[in-house]
Amino acid sequence: MFAQNPVFIPGPTNMPEVLRRAADMPTLDHRSPLFAQILHPALAGVKTVLKSEDAEVFIFPSTATGGWETALSNTLSAGDTVLAARHGMFSHRWIDMTRRHGLDVRMIEAPWGEGVPADRFAEALAADTAHRIRAVLVTHNETATGVRSDVAAVRRALDASNHPALLLVDGVSSIASMDFRMDAWGVDVAVTGSQKGFMLPAGLAIVAFSPKAMAATATATLPRTYFDIRDMAKGYPNGAYPYTPAVGLLNGLKLSTELLLAEGLENVFARHRRIADGIRAAVAAWGLELCAARPDLYSDTVSAIRTPEGFDATRIVTHAARHYDVAFGVGLGEVAGKVFRIGHLGSLTDVMALSGIAAAEMAMADLGLRIELGSGVAAAQAVYRRAPAAALRAAA
Amino acid sequence: MFAQNPVFIPGPTNMPEVLRRAADMPTLDHRSPLFAQILHPALAGVKTVLKSEDAEVFIFPSTATGGWETALSNTLSAGDTVLAARHGMFSHRWIDMTRRHGLDVRMIEAPWGEGVPADRFAEALAADTAHRIRAVLVTHNETATGVRSDVAAVRRALDASNHPALLLVDGVSSIASMDFRMDAWGVDVAVTGSQKGFMLPAGLAIVAFSPKAMAATATATLPRTYFDIRDMAKGYPNGAYPYTPAVGLLNGLKLSTELLLAEGLENVFARHRRIADGIRAAVAAWGLELCAARPDLYSDTVSAIRTPEGFDATRIVTHAARHYDVAFGVGLGEVAGKVFRIGHLGSLTDVMALSGIAAAEMAMADLGLRIELGSGVAAAQAVYRRAPAAALRAAA
Amino acid sequence: MFAQNPVFIPGPTNMPEVLRRAADMPTLDHRSPLFAQILHPALAGVKTVLKSEDAEVFIFPSTATGGWETALSNTLSAGDTVLAARHGMFSHRWIDMTRRHGLDVRMIEAPWGEGVPADRFAEALAADTAHRIRAVLVTHNETATGVRSDVAAVRRALDASNHPALLLVDGVSSIASMDFRMDAWGVDVAVTGSQKGFMLPAGLAIVAFSPKAMAATATATLPRTYFDIRDMAKGYPNGAYPYTPAVGLLNGLKLSTELLLAEGLENVFARHRRIADGIRAAVAAWGLELCAARPDLYSDTVSAIRTPEGFDATRIVTHAARHYDVAFGVGLGEVAGKVFRIGHLGSLTDVMALSGIAAAEMAMADLGLRIELGSGVAAAQAVYRRAPAAALRAAA
Amino acid sequence: MFAQNPVFIPGPTNMPEVLRRAADMPTLDHRSPLFAQILHPALAGVKTVLKSEDAEVFIFPSTATGGWETALSNTLSAGDTVLAARHGMFSHRWIDMTRRHGLDVRMIEAPWGEGVPADRFAEALAADTAHRIRAVLVTHNETATGVRSDVAAVRRALDASNHPALLLVDGVSSIASMDFRMDAWGVDVAVTGSQKGFMLPAGLAIVAFSPKAMAATATATLPRTYFDIRDMAKGYPNGAYPYTPAVGLLNGLKLSTELLLAEGLENVFARHRRIADGIRAAVAAWGLELCAARPDLYSDTVSAIRTPEGFDATRIVTHAARHYDVAFGVGLGEVAGKVFRIGHLGSLTDVMALSGIAAAEMAMADLGLRIELGSGVAAAQAVYRRAPAAALRAAA
Repeated sequence: MFAQNPVFIPGPTNMPEVLRRAADMPTLDHRSPLFAQILHPALAGVKTVLKSEDAEVFIFPSTATGGWETALSNTLSAGDTVLAARHGMFSHRWIDMTRRHGLDVRMIEAPWGEGVPADRFAEALAADTAHRIRAVLVTHNETATGVRSDVAAVRRALDASNHPALLLVDGVSSIASMDFRMDAWGVDVAVTGSQKGFMLPAGLAIVAFSPKAMAATATATLPRTYFDIRDMAKGYPNGAYPYTPAVGLLNGLKLSTELLLAEGLENVFARHRRIADGIRAAVAAWGLELCAARPDLYSDTVSAIRTPEGFDATRIVTHAARHYDVAFGVGLGEVAGKVFRIGHLGSLTDVMALSGIAAAEMAMADLGLRIELGSGVAAAQAVYRRAPAAALRAAA
Repeated sequence: MFAQNPVFIPGPTNMPEVLRRAADMPTLDHRSPLFAQILHPALAGVKTVLKSEDAEVFIFPSTATGGWETALSNTLSAGDTVLAARHGMFSHRWIDMTRRHGLDVRMIEAPWGEGVPADRFAEALAADTAHRIRAVLVTHNETATGVRSDVAAVRRALDASNHPALLLVDGVSSIASMDFRMDAWGVDVAVTGSQKGFMLPAGLAIVAFSPKAMAATATATLPRTYFDIRDMAKGYPNGAYPYTPAVGLLNGLKLSTELLLAEGLENVFARHRRIADGIRAAVAAWGLELCAARPDLYSDTVSAIRTPEGFDATRIVTHAARHYDVAFGVGLGEVAGKVFRIGHLGSLTDVMALSGIAAAEMAMADLGLRIELGSGVAAAQAVYRRAPAAALRAAA
Repeated sequence: MFAQNPVFIPGPTNMPEVLRRAADMPTLDHRSPLFAQILHPALAGVKTVLKSEDAEVFIFPSTATGGWETALSNTLSAGDTVLAARHGMFSHRWIDMTRRHGLDVRMIEAPWGEGVPADRFAEALAADTAHRIRAVLVTHNETATGVRSDVAAVRRALDASNHPALLLVDGVSSIASMDFRMDAWGVDVAVTGSQKGFMLPAGLAIVAFSPKAMAATATATLPRTYFDIRDMAKGYPNGAYPYTPAVGLLNGLKLSTELLLAEGLENVFARHRRIADGIRAAVAAWGLELCAARPDLYSDTVSAIRTPEGFDATRIVTHAARHYDVAFGVGLGEVAGKVFRIGHLGSLTDVMALSGIAAAEMAMADLGLRIELGSGVAAAQAVYRRAPAAALRAAA
Repeated sequence: MFAQNPVFIPGPTNMPEVLRRAADMPTLDHRSPLFAQILHPALAGVKTVLKSEDAEVFIFPSTATGGWETALSNTLSAGDTVLAARHGMFSHRWIDMTRRHGLDVRMIEAPWGEGVPADRFAEALAADTAHRIRAVLVTHNETATGVRSDVAAVRRALDASNHPALLLVDGVSSIASMDFRMDAWGVDVAVTGSQKGFMLPAGLAIVAFSPKAMAATATATLPRTYFDIRDMAKGYPNGAYPYTPAVGLLNGLKLSTELLLAEGLENVFARHRRIADGIRAAVAAWGLELCAARPDLYSDTVSAIRTPEGFDATRIVTHAARHYDVAFGVGLGEVAGKVFRIGHLGSLTDVMALSGIAAAEMAMADLGLRIELGSGVAAAQAVYRRAPAAALRAAA
């Protein structure tokens, strides 16, 4: 009753105390000049994290789902055609949103466990000589399946056809944890939230628009007010906000980007990679397989783990929560009951990751799966060990 | 540099430490049963605060502006006619939103300082025998002018014509601080946010739908996904949320309603009334006038104070912030430069109110207004004093 | 840089957030009646945790070392004889304090790893027919060696000789984590602190005096003011304190005892026992031995683990801190370099304990010890698993 | 029930949130190198605040009363003679402590409201040609009467007789708020605590020893362990502490000194002076008098205010607490019932001070004292106003 284990859901993540405190601010007059001292560095920090020189960043009191809506409603008009792949629950939902907003979506179905099929996108774009496709939607990291897609390949597909469609990318569970190159990949709108790589509470939709996407806002006629970036764009330079901002979360975002950039983005990515490698080593030691079809698709922020045929994977999640007070993620949609997920993004250490692996082992063994206790831990420890003994002795 | 004066802006308000802590939660798995233990009492608590038996409450990670959009997009379709009065900055903005969403607004202009003209609404409704007006919009408490409107009178106007239009009410700066009777007034959609009477950080849009408004969602065709209450309505009974909820703020809202109801709603309203009476006594002692035209319009949560002709009221706000570290509200829109505002809602004591009055006095005197130092404080003290000396001596 | 691993030092312990918040209070006037509402339940709670009906509890802004001084200076006079055993760093230090205060200590040396030699105490007390020994000092749980001594046996030794000496017990690292029976064992003064079983920051010395010890204060002439319990005893009934109290820590102590008693003391002890059993299973799996000589001496709050001859155990602590950001305890005094310590008291879960075991394994392996990675984790998991698979399947 | 008024007791003071957070640290291993990174700057910061180049600073988990005991027990032996004046409750208590520790105190009675009688000290020292007086005790700021004494004058008295006695100074309610010059005044031991000028929770005794006082520790034979500075002096250079330190409070002290020095000590003193001037202007406007006999004795951290003959001043404190939730200080000892006290040290703004004045006015008026509401506020506002209107207009 007294203690708090880390969580292993793929967001919201564990939060560093320093960020919780930055977000838990006393009330500040958001119409005073103090607000710009929070907003402007937060915007600049996000832009750097996105590796962009040209993007304009907008932040809404919302979640990333609101960020999806921002991306669509500010760049498109009813009846516009968009191209998207459905290969997991979150790509599914974004597609659902396009329909609710009256867009005409060309949906390519791909297996859950595969990434965005850049080759089929390439075909579709090449065939669209009339340029009816106004936007291509990509889910960079499918949180439901633990799959990272190749955004650069989609950009190449666009460029190969010299196609003018906008490239809208959901980077919710990748940005700030895995490499994301807004400018290099020619991303036109990038969407994320506060509660993943930025390690904050949920409550901010963070979106970035390329100059080309900014230009598209002039002709987009989907109705929008709350998520209208034009009001934001007008106010930001003066530190003004079109309605009451979530000042504390913005202050947290400011500090989060400062911490990430102080650590170094490549170090942050390498840290996520190392922790993910340990989790994957544990999965292999257990004799289980990832939902992600191939190593080049493996996500460094979440692993969806297939359980044996006939076993309801959701029981692991329920059991671990009830008996060990440890939260994992259930399978969603088409992989419900077939996978359970270990989130490994945000504020996590190797040692915390080991505790999650150990908890998963106990839960699986309790439920009758043939898991050797300690096997996954040992495999991950081999990844996490800092140095071989010989080197350490030499250095002593 | 060390100390924190109370703020006197009309929201976000001063926050009780206990609510800040409730909102500043460690990460909890929102897909676990724990979430319902937060969500359900928060929803029930809001319903009780609204004095409703029948409403369904929905809460979005957003602000009250998103609540406005929720009200419109879930009940109306493009081209629908709505009736609204423009008599302050916030009624102005809601009207602007109706236009951006393609609604046809019949706007009645009223002086800034007046309330909603229920009589003119009655005329318009009576004349609308074809029932083209689908919704009537009312700003219960105009935060820009410190004016409380008579919602019950608008309901009477609707009933007098037996008009079926929905009654949509912005209660952002009234709900949880001043009496609001959703059922008794026949309000169909009530809108508020977390950062006013609920004394929390900004970040939640709180909306309540009457059964009639719920029914209207079936035919409303304005595009919506993020603010679609149908997804919320479907998930809530199971403690499910259509996307990542702002768990901490919901936990804060749960506690806020518990605290408000433990104090007793009528006691909460009386407290706001008493503090407001003190502020108004100070304004009278200064020889100044409120923007609100008549006492029956006076808001108990914010006072907009007219300054003498030729004097830029904004200077008071700037000066108080710079020299006394005290935040007041500037005039907005048509009353910019003509009024400054003292917010007196949320977590505030008589003693804190006196410090705001004292700060305003110093700022006004510094800027050359003929204000007798201490005069407003003395007038407010007379309101706030707990008991006459004789009674106290007798009781000793 | 972002995350906080649990600590595995034998105090201060990991702190539940709810206790940190209780201790982190805004300033309260300690001369107002509010203070008694904190002090009185804190005192009563401690008394219940001590399983005492008769003791008077006193709490000083200090640490447990000040509690030792309180015990001595309130019951003894310069030149008085005391009986004590030296079998670890903390018994050593208390003996040192007796000398600095001019007491005449009869010190019995016991091996570090053994408990208090009750039989040799019995001999000494039986031989002391003149009753020159005024007090017997017992370290209930030697934090340096992970040894729990048998206080009841010392009581029996006193009773066997019908010896009137006071029984002063250091329960710093046992009270609130392991069974402690002040009345049943005839303890005259019990000493502890806030930062161990009570899971709070360091800063409170907590002492309890039996009626017999209270009587002794009248004749004790060791100089004392700050630690004089007479001033405390005089003020407490009125909620008065002889100087400025540490209000926040007292508030934390109040809540801590409430949480402990709500869980149930025997459940708290069983929890510590279970977690300790897991740690001990890991040590056995590593092929290492505890400093504690026999199972009946094993402490449930701290394990001191002997490393192989010729290996400097302190390197494990240094290495784990530097490379894994995990804090263990070094060996102290005679066992410096020979043992490292894992603290497992206070706010700790099975899953957190597993992370400490995993970190220790990596550190030892890195340093060249023949430790099979995962072996200790697996052994502890077997202890921590909630239920066999069959039973769970049946229950499903 | 929701709000927190500032406190106006003369310590513990209002605490800046940033300091509360610095003090509310997660557990850190105090035996790791991290601890020195907190301890060393805290010690250095205190030394700078004391304006000393030569002193050694020691910090105990204790309160300032423990600091008094540290001063006595480390420099004196039983039977030693000390010279002290009794002119308030806190000087009274320190004298009481000297007796309990077997010292021979030559007590000079002075009226409560007067400072230390340096002239009578000079006579006593001049007459003590045998140099039996080993220490002179001075209470720099008598918190009970709001009187600041002239430490430099006592130093001159010592020097005039070329007397070798140590100069021990209680600076509990002056240090870090009013000018204190350890080296310039030849102070040998300075004593303070965490909960006054340093704006932290109670829990640290902070003492500084001059080289001469350090030398005296070698011959001092009063028994001491917990408060023995020799153990501290030995460990500090290595970041070691003789027992468990209050790490969080030390971290708070580190930050407190950083904030104070960033503001500039003279600015801190001037801020206290300005706020005190406002309080004193209010007292004069009320037609009341301070307990302090003359302006050169006025304390800048606490004002003790005499109420009319026949009126029980304590009623003001009780009434303000009950009806306005505002804490003032009661009169203590000889001035109990004759004065009430307004503490005005630590984290306080002009605006907060005005709220305390306003609350006091209401309480006094409620109780039948002839106090014109607003009169004290107006007098203080005149002190606190930042600039005359003309100058402001010119600058606009």
